[in-house]
Amino acid sequence: MAKQLVFGHQNPDTDAIAAAIAYAYLEKQKGYDTEAVALGEPNDETQYALKYFRTDAPRVVKTVSNEVDKVMLVDHNEPQQSAPDIDKVTVTHVIDHHRIQNFNTAQPLYYHAEPVGCVSTIIYEEYQMAGVEIPKNIAGLMASAIISDTLLLKSPTTTAKDRTALAALAQEAGIDPKKYGLTMLKAGTNIAGKPAAE
Amino acid sequence: MAKQLVFGHQNPDTDAIAAAIAYAYLEKQKGYDTEAVALGEPNDETQYALKYFRTDAPRVVKTVSNEVDKVMLVDHNEPQQSAPDIDKVTVTHVIDHHRIQNFNTAQPLYYHAEPVGCVSTIIYEEYQMAGVEIPKNIAGLMASAIISDTLLLKSPTTTAKDRTALAALAQEAGIDPKKYGLTMLKAGTNIAGKPAAE
Ligand SMILES: [Mn+2]
Ligand SMILES: [Mn+2]
Ligand SMILES: [Mn+2]
Ligand SMILES: [Mn+2]
Repeated sequence: MAKQLVFGHQNPDTDAIAAAIAYAYLEKQKGYDTEAVALGEPNDETQYALKYFRTDAPRVVKTVSNEVDKVMLVDHNEPQQSAPDIDKVTVTHVIDHHRIQNFNTAQPLYYHAEPVGCVSTIIYEEYQMAGVEIPKNIAGLMASAIISDTLLLKSPTTTAKDRTALAALAQEAGIDPKKYGLTMLKAGTNIAGKPAAE
Repeated sequence: MAKQLVFGHQNPDTDAIAAAIAYAYLEKQKGYDTEAVALGEPNDETQYALKYFRTDAPRVVKTVSNEVDKVMLVDHNEPQQSAPDIDKVTVTHVIDHHRIQNFNTAQPLYYHAEPVGCVSTIIYEEYQMAGVEIPKNIAGLMASAIISDTLLLKSPTTTAKDRTALAALAQEAGIDPKKYGLTMLKAGTNIAGKPAAE
């Protein structure tokens, strides 16, 4: 089976990076030849999570059609937020929690979206449906994504499914969601790397 | 919870009708106030299936925004194939097996599409995920839809999931898929009602 890239939106947040890593791993277990990549460098918060769970940052790519014919999208669907050459490849899978805008395909595809607080919550469901065990470091990254997207389950977009997924993933990853989460969110607001005048 | 209409595409085929009935029932078990309707009269094949499984045809509606604010779509997503006033309501759920074209939403929604031969195959999965038992007559209609869309599992769009779903639904409905299916497909090509010259 030809290789497929799996990636989230431009200017990636923790969910875009974690979901790409988590979904690429899951689809690889199903027989796809996947590689998680990113359309930009991880931000400070995401770097904290990647370091904590001892996971390499996904390779950053500028374009995708120079490498593959087919891709899988996570945490976005709008072409404006995707790879600049997204119109030159076939999207076979989308896992998302945003509105659908300007997303058109020539062929049927796998599309799983739900109105929940974080796409990693949906990917947690996908693992359960497939009966695939989530590696500890990936569970930690998915928990980080839910903490990030829902601001520790406090955002108005938070649903019961996000709560259930975070509790299960945090246990799997061996973290206390509140304690770890506050430190991670704080790392994202770190003044290091910001202009000195601030 | 405000009432929602559930419907398939214009000029409904057996899948559009069966999927509306099956998904409306499933979502009702989840607490939604749903009614399956249709954007046209059932064709000869569908009428045969409805009669065989002693199920009333869904009410035919010309427009939807005069009745409800929110709808669920099955077996289509393209506005051109939907209710003429689809732009005046909010689509909260889509279950489909077609390409995505000109389908835009203002808000996140539940969207479950897979590249399989029949949308009733996906709805069978939805019942399994929800742990809801399929009533015998609805199982029969879903089996009829798979037989119709895949021409008894012979169309090139047929997948392993369609085979699995048809076998399970046929057993549930107490039919022999081949024997029942050939009679149903034949009913759809009935010369009754066709011009006398033929
Ligand atoms: Mn995001
Ligand atoms: Mn997200
Ligand atoms: Mn149809
Ligand atoms: Mn269909």
